[in-house]
Amino acid sequence: MLARLPGAEVTFVAPGGSTIVTGDARLRLGVDATLDQVTSADLLLVPGGLATRRLIADRRLLEWLRAIDRTTTVTASVCTGSLLLAAAGLLEGRRATCHWARLSRLTEFGAVPVAERLVRDGKYATAAGVSAGIDLGLALALELAGREVAESIQLAIEYDPAPPLSAGHPARVSPAIRDAILQRLQRQEDALAADR
Amino acid sequence: MLARLPGAEVTFVAPGGSTIVTGDARLRLGVDATLDQVTSADLLLVPGGLATRRLIADRRLLEWLRAIDRTTTVTASVCTGSLLLAAAGLLEGRRATCHWARLSRLTEFGAVPVAERLVRDGKYATAAGVSAGIDLGLALALELAGREVAESIQLAIEYDPAPPLSAGHPARVSPAIRDAILQRLQRQEDALAADR
Repeated sequence: MLARLPGAEVTFVAPGGSTIVTGDARLRLGVDATLDQVTSADLLLVPGGLATRRLIADRRLLEWLRAIDRTTTVTASVCTGSLLLAAAGLLEGRRATCHWARLSRLTEFGAVPVAERLVRDGKYATAAGVSAGIDLGLALALELAGREVAESIQLAIEYDPAPPLSAGHPARVSPAIRDAILQRLQRQEDALAADR
Repeated sequence: MLARLPGAEVTFVAPGGSTIVTGDARLRLGVDATLDQVTSADLLLVPGGLATRRLIADRRLLEWLRAIDRTTTVTASVCTGSLLLAAAGLLEGRRATCHWARLSRLTEFGAVPVAERLVRDGKYATAAGVSAGIDLGLALALELAGREVAESIQLAIEYDPAPPLSAGHPARVSPAIRDAILQRLQRQEDALAADR
């Protein structure tokens, strides 16, 4: 969504390397720059994923987030990316959202968890899990470039969602399915911690 | 969505090179294999994008699509990927969908355009533009792995869409915005053709 804003220059930044392997099998994303190469941004968007639980203790990354944040108009996150903003101290006392399964962890860093899809507090815009990033992108397009541009982007990607199931919210799924996700996530986090 | 199916092995295939640059600025996706390296698939998913208008005349790719299709349980496409399936002769006489701005082109290859978000005809599952791929993925998860798995995937990515605007369908946007997209697309296609 954001790459389509008129005049947007997008830079994918990561602590190291030239490629990011995502949590999902085999999906690899190209990286444009390391932390040292980027010193400012109009908009900072921090994505989520399992790796955020490791990066939460990465002092160099957290310092970089604070430094970039000092230059932004909007600082945003998707999914567990808000845990990184919070760990950097940027959401202290602020309302924020996160993936539903890790929303409560925001309190560890002084943020106020809000179980909504999009939460805005000052210049901080946080989105719930994964796919909420699409709604965040559209909301930011509307805010930053106006209704005509935002509608044009929405139509260009034909974002007229029609999920064949209604299980996208924890309140609308059986406890068994919710618990299975929570348990799998905990196993993944334990494995990540053991791997350190 | 599909990478999360139990037991799924995902392979990103492209005619050449190790990275795909997408239509959107700077987004680069890793490629796992060239055409020669993949000779069968349970599920073939052909994505869209501007490049499909060039690939439509790529005989080697079209032959590969036909060969893989002979081995699949489901052959699917998102966005203008259906133009490639159609150009390969796989949608002859079949109902199919595509990005709204290029839906009518399906007739050039003997397919029957249907202005719906998801269209199924036999083993061929086509989705409308870009974001319709999420709904397709969920529908295929439901079909291939059952309701519990599909609901679990939907909840894991918190796919509970809440677009802040309703411009995702051409019928709900001003003609000016529609026309601007069509004109920009035509310019992009003309530039692609001139670049050959």
